[in-house]
Amino acid sequence: MASITVPNPLPSPEQDAQNLRKAFQGWGTDEQAIIGILCHRKAAQRAAISETYDRLYNESLLRRLHSELSGDFRGAVMLWTADPAERDAKLAHKALKKKDDRHVWVIIEVACASCSDHLMAVRKAYHSLFLSSIEEDVAFKFSETNPLRQLLVQLVSSYRYDGEHVDEEIAKSEAAELHDAIRKSQPCHAEVIRILSTRNKVQLKETFKHYEQNFGKAIDEDISNQGSSQLFSMLKAIVWCLTSPERHFAEVIRSSILGLGTDEASLTRSIVSRAEIDMKKIKEEYKKRYRTTLNDDVIGDTSGYYKSFLLALVGSADS
Amino acid sequence: MASITVPNPLPSPEQDAQNLRKAFQGWGTDEQAIIGILCHRKAAQRAAISETYDRLYNESLLRRLHSELSGDFRGAVMLWTADPAERDAKLAHKALKKKDDRHVWVIIEVACASCSDHLMAVRKAYHSLFLSSIEEDVAFKFSETNPLRQLLVQLVSSYRYDGEHVDEEIAKSEAAELHDAIRKSQPCHAEVIRILSTRNKVQLKETFKHYEQNFGKAIDEDISNQGSSQLFSMLKAIVWCLTSPERHFAEVIRSSILGLGTDEASLTRSIVSRAEIDMKKIKEEYKKRYRTTLNDDVIGDTSGYYKSFLLALVGSADS
Repeated sequence: MASITVPNPLPSPEQDAQNLRKAFQGWGTDEQAIIGILCHRKAAQRAAISETYDRLYNESLLRRLHSELSGDFRGAVMLWTADPAERDAKLAHKALKKKDDRHVWVIIEVACASCSDHLMAVRKAYHSLFLSSIEEDVAFKFSETNPLRQLLVQLVSSYRYDGEHVDEEIAKSEAAELHDAIRKSQPCHAEVIRILSTRNKVQLKETFKHYEQNFGKAIDEDISNQGSSQLFSMLKAIVWCLTSPERHFAEVIRSSILGLGTDEASLTRSIVSRAEIDMKKIKEEYKKRYRTTLNDDVIGDTSGYYKSFLLALVGSADS
Repeated sequence: MASITVPNPLPSPEQDAQNLRKAFQGWGTDEQAIIGILCHRKAAQRAAISETYDRLYNESLLRRLHSELSGDFRGAVMLWTADPAERDAKLAHKALKKKDDRHVWVIIEVACASCSDHLMAVRKAYHSLFLSSIEEDVAFKFSETNPLRQLLVQLVSSYRYDGEHVDEEIAKSEAAELHDAIRKSQPCHAEVIRILSTRNKVQLKETFKHYEQNFGKAIDEDISNQGSSQLFSMLKAIVWCLTSPERHFAEVIRSSILGLGTDEASLTRSIVSRAEIDMKKIKEEYKKRYRTTLNDDVIGDTSGYYKSFLLALVGSADS
């Protein structure tokens, strides 16, 4: 479901490192060459290039990219070239430092839209980078009376079983518990937190299926009908990130483009973090929901190397 | 701080596996030989022996031990020979299946008296063994109105930063928050849960130091003065497991011996799980607090191979 394309045959990490070095030297930087290499390599391949570059030239590839590039393009290339776990740890940390509420979405994405082992790797990277734990910083940020605290702390602390085991009886009874809490407008009810933060994703899909069968409406629809308060919007994002992250990211990308001026941070984050996971599904969802293509929206709203970079990650409109 | 002794030169895993095989064969089992080998090998060495035995004889060492031995001795040898993360996952799971409240202590020990990476390994082992997550089973066991639920779920879900970084200002202010909650008899106050379940252990030591300096009494003393309700006993166990686990385990061992009949499960669990970590400290603490040695208590209260096994792990009384 990844959207990036990798050349065949694949150049060696040495060749890629040498070509990046060439792109940095001489008159000006050859941005297109950087895009041509880095946007067409998977995470492990980018890590090998980074490691090889550091060794061959005794300088950090990331630091060199930082000094060669600028603006949104630089931000995007840096995020894409970083180790994915470190990238998400940095995104979460940056979000937690912000005063506005944008941080909440990033925390939900990192906690709910990744597999269990990736979230663990993010927590480990967070330790090394920031000398604290992500749950510690989330808990410290919110006051004890804020209903978000417990919900977000438990989401970032989860290490869900990631197998296929499903218990039908539990799915039925927990669908009813969720329905009851949503109907009573209690998005942070203790049972909602318990179910969404501890159950495995296959189990949750089954629970949401029973929800729709037994109560006539899909859980996300019921949540939307409760109004657009931040807590309900978050609850919908959590439900989506856990079981159909393409719906969440299609919405984030669309909103980042539709708003007053482009929200480059959200646009970059969504495309960089999903290009290797489910970008094809996001593009399909985007087309279905907004009757335009994600590619056309990116083309219409960005420019320069930043645009070329995003389009390289997104792949062609019809793939 | 480990109490076990390892021979020098160390036999190869092949030699150990062969000698275990000999101990199983012929008339009766040579229990003393099993103790002589397994109780004098570290976890990684036992894992190598187990793996070598399985390969050489095409049978599981653990299963063979189970069929050769019996009673408390068998239980202890099985726990000691298992991989430490699997052992703790099994202990936690068994505790969660019990109706009585003994489970709470095991969950606290697994969550608070291990380093962060061990707790993570336990959670991973729990997935493979029981097709669920430990936090899921803890959360499901307690009702939403039980104040223990949130506390225990957050403790087992924690992945604490395990470096030395300390923030003095935070230590001072959180000492005051803890003091306030204890004074008001609120052992499961949201701030108590946040502090104890997210802060790193070095930071917590500093917080407890400030607590004693600023409020005249050590935090565990203040907790004890609040009475012996289960919640306060648990809070003391958490504080001890986090920053001075030798105090907790000395008390568990002493209680397992003093009670009406010996509580072998607790005795075995404490000795097996701490022999490679802090058994020397536990013995010192035991002597200081109970004016007798842990060895003498084990000798007076157990018998047969079970006694020999425990004493081999505990080491000599004065070391």
